[in-house]
Amino acid sequence: MEFTIGQIAAMLGGQIQGKSEDKISMLAKIQDAKQGQLSFLSNPKYEQFIYTTNASAVIVKKDFVPKKDITTTLILVEDPYVSFTILLEEYHKLISFQKSGVEEPCFIGQQVSVGNAIYRGAFSYIGNKCKIGNNVKIYPHAYIGDNVVIGDNTIIHSGVKIYADTRIGNNCVIHSGTVIGSDGFGFAPQADGSYKTIPQLGNVVIEDNVAIGANTVIDCATLFGDATIIQQGVKLDNLIQVAHNVEIGKNTVIAAQSGISGSSKVGENCMIAGQVGIAGHLVIANKTSIGAQAGVSKSINEEGQRLIGYPVFDIREYFKSYALFKKLPELNQRLAELEKKTGG
Amino acid sequence: MEFTIGQIAAMLGGQIQGKSEDKISMLAKIQDAKQGQLSFLSNPKYEQFIYTTNASAVIVKKDFVPKKDITTTLILVEDPYVSFTILLEEYHKLISFQKSGVEEPCFIGQQVSVGNAIYRGAFSYIGNKCKIGNNVKIYPHAYIGDNVVIGDNTIIHSGVKIYADTRIGNNCVIHSGTVIGSDGFGFAPQADGSYKTIPQLGNVVIEDNVAIGANTVIDCATLFGDATIIQQGVKLDNLIQVAHNVEIGKNTVIAAQSGISGSSKVGENCMIAGQVGIAGHLVIANKTSIGAQAGVSKSINEEGQRLIGYPVFDIREYFKSYALFKKLPELNQRLAELEKKTGG
Amino acid sequence: MEFTIGQIAAMLGGQIQGKSEDKISMLAKIQDAKQGQLSFLSNPKYEQFIYTTNASAVIVKKDFVPKKDITTTLILVEDPYVSFTILLEEYHKLISFQKSGVEEPCFIGQQVSVGNAIYRGAFSYIGNKCKIGNNVKIYPHAYIGDNVVIGDNTIIHSGVKIYADTRIGNNCVIHSGTVIGSDGFGFAPQADGSYKTIPQLGNVVIEDNVAIGANTVIDCATLFGDATIIQQGVKLDNLIQVAHNVEIGKNTVIAAQSGISGSSKVGENCMIAGQVGIAGHLVIANKTSIGAQAGVSKSINEEGQRLIGYPVFDIREYFKSYALFKKLPELNQRLAELEKKTGG
Repeated sequence: MEFTIGQIAAMLGGQIQGKSEDKISMLAKIQDAKQGQLSFLSNPKYEQFIYTTNASAVIVKKDFVPKKDITTTLILVEDPYVSFTILLEEYHKLISFQKSGVEEPCFIGQQVSVGNAIYRGAFSYIGNKCKIGNNVKIYPHAYIGDNVVIGDNTIIHSGVKIYADTRIGNNCVIHSGTVIGSDGFGFAPQADGSYKTIPQLGNVVIEDNVAIGANTVIDCATLFGDATIIQQGVKLDNLIQVAHNVEIGKNTVIAAQSGISGSSKVGENCMIAGQVGIAGHLVIANKTSIGAQAGVSKSINEEGQRLIGYPVFDIREYFKSYALFKKLPELNQRLAELEKKTGG
Repeated sequence: MEFTIGQIAAMLGGQIQGKSEDKISMLAKIQDAKQGQLSFLSNPKYEQFIYTTNASAVIVKKDFVPKKDITTTLILVEDPYVSFTILLEEYHKLISFQKSGVEEPCFIGQQVSVGNAIYRGAFSYIGNKCKIGNNVKIYPHAYIGDNVVIGDNTIIHSGVKIYADTRIGNNCVIHSGTVIGSDGFGFAPQADGSYKTIPQLGNVVIEDNVAIGANTVIDCATLFGDATIIQQGVKLDNLIQVAHNVEIGKNTVIAAQSGISGSSKVGENCMIAGQVGIAGHLVIANKTSIGAQAGVSKSINEEGQRLIGYPVFDIREYFKSYALFKKLPELNQRLAELEKKTGG
Repeated sequence: MEFTIGQIAAMLGGQIQGKSEDKISMLAKIQDAKQGQLSFLSNPKYEQFIYTTNASAVIVKKDFVPKKDITTTLILVEDPYVSFTILLEEYHKLISFQKSGVEEPCFIGQQVSVGNAIYRGAFSYIGNKCKIGNNVKIYPHAYIGDNVVIGDNTIIHSGVKIYADTRIGNNCVIHSGTVIGSDGFGFAPQADGSYKTIPQLGNVVIEDNVAIGANTVIDCATLFGDATIIQQGVKLDNLIQVAHNVEIGKNTVIAAQSGISGSSKVGENCMIAGQVGIAGHLVIANKTSIGAQAGVSKSINEEGQRLIGYPVFDIREYFKSYALFKKLPELNQRLAELEKKTGG
């Protein structure tokens, strides 16, 4: 994987100032880059490094004017950070999809259809009646139960466990240790204090372009025909709990260790920070932003709010209250003095 | 798996109004059900659907009197929801226990005894000297270390990891990715600031009828002969931490992402919500109810309390205080005005 | 594994009062110990048991003087607890490292070098170009991606997933289900509300003597040449989230279910309790102690503080404020009375 600076500039629609024939084999930060590597300059506070970098080329903004001599080749573009990200992404795809073929031993059930260019790692397991798309990468120790459908270009990392009947779209990435389709937590209390298990018979549907981190859990829905749904473009971090019958709206992002209880519907384009808890049977409006460790116990109906606390309220109000919480001993003291003064 | 309405009614001890010979092959919600499917009507707000449903039969309360024409067959029972749950459970058992036999390759150690009707999925691993009961289902990629004992009718889902010497009872279900018997977190501080590992030599004992969700962790006890104990009927959700030497009492239910620190004893019939933390070496009385995200730092001696907060106190008191926390800026303002008025 | 009391005393540099030729085959608590077992007496409140114990020998402090008749043999040492811990550790090592050889089937890639005395459990996977040291134990279902380096005497438990390019030092223990090197959570917002994945191209470096619990996740760094770093002697509990580009300093201890967001640097010798959250891009000073469920949203510059709350502040101040939080209804009442009294 080696490209000329000219090829890269062409890919980015950029102008070259310097040697277009030099070869690039890697991407690196401007302060660390070596010969044969490509870097970028976006944040002005790193400008100093462009005069000393060993990078063979640096992507810069098209109006960049050097203040000193420069030895590296420049690629001038609209937005250097975006351009660099595009290159990183292309490189990442090359790496992510480079595995292919079948490593033995691996297990495949009956009546399974698999697409082209797929990778099935050693010790991977595909149950009966599965439909696996093109260019799907199934790493070692991944488990795919019966009747699972997986779209094209989806990567299932090592040790992912997918229960029967799950549906996963195109261009998804699921990281190691994540469990999809396990039983929801449903138990009916009995007169003697014990619990009867409420069987969980629904499934999980994951739409296109969803990314799921490591060791996250998404439970299946309770009833036949129902699904726990992760809509397109959703990004879930590591160690997240998604309970039965939850629905997460398009392009919502949820950070690590947050949990969403049964049957709650999270809107589109929400930003949920880490270690947040959302109670069951709630509706969260689109574009809601919830701060770290917050607890949501009621539905949020108004779009675009920024919330925090347990239970949540407006983030600015929270911090005003919290500043006074820290001063409660002083407030109490002032109160006591007033009581004294007024003969309380 | 097809039954006549007559067979189902007999199973439930119900009366039939309609065609007892029609065949049922699936269960579904009343608003979604199709021909050949069975549903139930429990909540009166769904009554409208019984007049239009395509379900072949609907389970209703025995005193149900239709207000309009009905085309579906009725099965009249004492409690439709309970009856439907029984059917769901039977159906779920049929599915859960349908796997049997041995898929190759799988690994089994020496001096292992296994019961009848067990399933050993491909790539499952059973260590030396294990005793596995009848009708146990061990899914692909499950790991069972040496000297493990598993009772009858227990399901070990894909990728569960069970360390050596663990004991698991009858009728348990353990979901994917859960780890049982890993080392407790014990380290003795040394003079130079480093830590020496305190070896963890006990085990984990899981009694009968316990359900454990996905990606939960239960550490082993520290000393020989000691055990981390999950008593009968306990239900643990996903991503829960149960530290070394913890004991969880009969029929206690713990929701996702909660954690119980070392050596704490949780009573029977407790309800612990999600993301709760319980410190180490505490005793929690029976029937304690702890709200989401709460933190317990002292033992709870009185039974039946409902607690929340960090540290926890009575839930109603918490919400009274929290309502005023939100108004702290206003309280502060009132205080300032009083101070002004009294020449403070 | 049987030793004479004399051999054990010699190993500990202790004096014997009693029968040095008796055999010991196990360690146990003083109140539970049986013949052939060895125990210790450290905490004076357990002294009663030394007069009735069935242990063949008990380790005691060198100045211990029995108040009654004693039948067990005594081993007198400087610090009985430390001595017992040393024995436990030796015993644990014997057990931990007793597995060796290769169980089939297992997978090994090309150009891999492996040391002596290693164990490769059935269904373990080692990718291409890995370098595995001496006496490394790789349990069943462990996955080791391409180009991974693992030092000597490191134990990789069943089902651990290690992504390509990870480096792990000597004498580490990693428990089941833990994922190392998964993609960091990085997404660049697009104009249409969707997100572009920021490829994660760095790796994870774990230094010597690190212990990591079960189902923990450590993400790789974002850029080439960058690493998420776990320094020597760090102890991580179960279900912890360590995001991309985090660095955790020497001998820091983190309890279960805590999470550290991207690019934060935690100092050396810190103690972080369970369910703590640390925001991104922060620096936490050495010897910081953070209480359970706390949230850190700003850098902590002063060493040795004890903090709690959300956001954190001094633990004693927190508890003073919290005591008054619980009394807010009463404070509000007092305020209302003052207002009444002053004609407010």
